[in-house]
Amino acid sequence: MSWINISKNSHFSLANIPFGIFSTTVQSKRIGVAIGDYVLDIPGFVRNEGLTGLDVNTRNLLETSKALEQQTLNGLASLGKPVHSGLRRYIQEVFKSDGRYPDVLQKNSQLQQKVLVPMSDVTMHVPFEIGDYTDFYVGCNHAYNCGCIFRGPQNALQPNYYHLPVGYHGRASSVVVSGTGIRRPKGQILVPADDGTTQPELHASKKMDYEFEIAAFVGKSNNLGEPVPIGQANDHLFGFVIMNDWSARDIQAWEYVPLGPFTSKNFGTSISPWVVHTDALEPFRCEPIKRKESDPKVQPYLDESASEFSPKTVHDIQMSIDLTISGESHRISQMSAKYMLYSFPQMIAHHTVTGCNLRVGDLLGSGTISGTESGTEGSMLELSQGGKRDVVIGSVTRRFLEDGDTVTFSAVAGDAATGLVGFGTLEGTVLPAAK
Amino acid sequence: MSWINISKNSHFSLANIPFGIFSTTVQSKRIGVAIGDYVLDIPGFVRNEGLTGLDVNTRNLLETSKALEQQTLNGLASLGKPVHSGLRRYIQEVFKSDGRYPDVLQKNSQLQQKVLVPMSDVTMHVPFEIGDYTDFYVGCNHAYNCGCIFRGPQNALQPNYYHLPVGYHGRASSVVVSGTGIRRPKGQILVPADDGTTQPELHASKKMDYEFEIAAFVGKSNNLGEPVPIGQANDHLFGFVIMNDWSARDIQAWEYVPLGPFTSKNFGTSISPWVVHTDALEPFRCEPIKRKESDPKVQPYLDESASEFSPKTVHDIQMSIDLTISGESHRISQMSAKYMLYSFPQMIAHHTVTGCNLRVGDLLGSGTISGTESGTEGSMLELSQGGKRDVVIGSVTRRFLEDGDTVTFSAVAGDAATGLVGFGTLEGTVLPAAK
Ligand SMILES: [Ca+2]
Ligand SMILES: [Ca+2]
Ligand SMILES: [Mg+2]
Ligand SMILES: [Mg+2]
Ligand code: NI
Repeated sequence: MSWINISKNSHFSLANIPFGIFSTTVQSKRIGVAIGDYVLDIPGFVRNEGLTGLDVNTRNLLETSKALEQQTLNGLASLGKPVHSGLRRYIQEVFKSDGRYPDVLQKNSQLQQKVLVPMSDVTMHVPFEIGDYTDFYVGCNHAYNCGCIFRGPQNALQPNYYHLPVGYHGRASSVVVSGTGIRRPKGQILVPADDGTTQPELHASKKMDYEFEIAAFVGKSNNLGEPVPIGQANDHLFGFVIMNDWSARDIQAWEYVPLGPFTSKNFGTSISPWVVHTDALEPFRCEPIKRKESDPKVQPYLDESASEFSPKTVHDIQMSIDLTISGESHRISQMSAKYMLYSFPQMIAHHTVTGCNLRVGDLLGSGTISGTESGTEGSMLELSQGGKRDVVIGSVTRRFLEDGDTVTFSAVAGDAATGLVGFGTLEGTVLPAAK
Repeated sequence: MSWINISKNSHFSLANIPFGIFSTTVQSKRIGVAIGDYVLDIPGFVRNEGLTGLDVNTRNLLETSKALEQQTLNGLASLGKPVHSGLRRYIQEVFKSDGRYPDVLQKNSQLQQKVLVPMSDVTMHVPFEIGDYTDFYVGCNHAYNCGCIFRGPQNALQPNYYHLPVGYHGRASSVVVSGTGIRRPKGQILVPADDGTTQPELHASKKMDYEFEIAAFVGKSNNLGEPVPIGQANDHLFGFVIMNDWSARDIQAWEYVPLGPFTSKNFGTSISPWVVHTDALEPFRCEPIKRKESDPKVQPYLDESASEFSPKTVHDIQMSIDLTISGESHRISQMSAKYMLYSFPQMIAHHTVTGCNLRVGDLLGSGTISGTESGTEGSMLELSQGGKRDVVIGSVTRRFLEDGDTVTFSAVAGDAATGLVGFGTLEGTVLPAAK
């Protein structure tokens, strides 16, 4: 329990304490922490003796570091897990009803006025400077569903799928924060020609889609040429956001051979603003998708069975997708983040196996996550079976997104009793294509 | 003619004046310009009244800008083409034998001592902070050669190849400067199994290769959602380097379906340190690979026929590859940069067509460039026909690179009479795989 009022439904309970970058009409971009309906202004808190109760070493490091003056989380993450884990635990203690440091903030209403900003007053920003963004494809059910649509159930998964977490390099420049409108892309798509064949033409995408993914921010770098061993990979994670990897399916289908998706993905990728720290998700560890006896086993460099977390290498986070059409919202899918064939540590071990260096702030997307049942699809491509079937949403139907549609993702772990650990919402509205 | 001695064979004649980032044992990283065997220390030059003869506006802009204090070229490039073009032309004038500003440097031996650093004393660095790196595939002959190896001549080029410049997002973090050793990657490759089939295994790559590409640095950004029209795309280029897109062919073959190359490329990409300004290459414009009447025409958004440069949309730059084995060097290929099916402005127009934002410092690789004849191959994959044929190099043979092999690329335009405009060399040695 906290001495500040946190609604039972808040994603930002005392058990969460996610980090983000906010600004207000009078405050420039800075690091904040979400708690209930408030944002704690971290540099303000630190400057005003907020860290009094923190152990001296961590306190000194934070007070003298330039990390807290940055307009991204890169500096804070670079200080190392003991520092940001320690800071998060300390903030929990500061906000606890029966906490050890009531003088710091609870009994200091002057400081509360200064550093507790109502969430309704803040604008949120992309939390990290993202050096590189990589998108994986570990949502096995999604990969299978898409494979069935394009190649049939016999060849749905490619031969490499059970051997390595398939991934590709994405576009870092076009990662935007929740709330940013996404313009329907114009690109090359195949359209029917007079002679009955198809011809490529520059056209507004007719198959604009969302992809619900969990994404991790890297909090610890590795040197070029030095792969991260699977046993250490978890230490390289700072925290998680939810991600919408907007996709133009018709552009993708035409362009992706032989080098992968390019303009069909790089027009925008949306992420939620609050980065849920790895520590906050520890209680929600669970097992990933199980391999059958007949499925290939992973190479030793991907084998997590000796990990302290094994076999709970992923997290059970409840994900939901709402579509708002003409002001009316409908839930169209629900799934769990546990439906991954590979964990984030496995993605990191594979990403770096040939020597690739990850840097603090790099973003790693899981790939679309779908469950196995109807109503658990992470993309509209799956819901409409490749655009061949109407999806009934309230009083209208969809096969892909239309202009003005708002896609809202939400994800949360835990329950009201112990406090929700959530990501808030990730929202984006499809804007009409440019003239 | 310059008043400083520039050898006829120097790539850095008065006609070139490329920009780079250098340091010495006593000087931290800073902007420099290459001229003959010297590097002009640009911030030193500017601080010591070096810009006296430059027009007042550009001079003020450069003197008051923080751009020249940066350890990358991003700031300088961001000042705009009039500024860096003007600075380059001014430096040419300063170094001319009969230049208009002899007092600035020619007759000022004290300043010469201060700001002219022997090239042998400098260490070169990656010239830009690279936000995103994209690799295209516009070397039509290379694409055809590779397609023949993998799919036979009938299906060598994919259906989209003549319609759009195929490209994929590369890894920015592992772009390194010439001279950096490249460790042979370990990754998943298919190896023969006891039962006659193949099985994936973590193994040092047996098919390590180079790819000779021309690469452009972006000098002007565009906003997300606002494609760069083909007619303006040339203005978004700052200059060019040569690039070695090291590739592990066996890892690539296994991993690339369906989302493209990933760990087979991201272990290292080498670039030459001196960025040859677009202005320096203007005299060497020429026509790209010609489409046959029967080949598809490009969409209007890629049509350059109305461009002021048309039909000379690419550059005739002589490229050469030397391989050094046990201390002995042999030239193994020579080709021209004109063997591209799409120009860099076309690559930019396509990259941004769906709205992707490019930022100053982004790196765009052309894809491997090969000619049509034997001896013009841009990769060893082509020389050895997919590793099926020995390539005789002096007294030894190769099918792919071996440990200790040094790959040296060089590229140069023009002739000794008017002064060479070259890229210098791009060198990298294959280091043995980690234990
Ligand atoms: Ca995706
Ligand atoms: Ca390449
Ligand atoms: Mg995207
Ligand atoms: Mg590479
Ligand atoms: Ni010899």
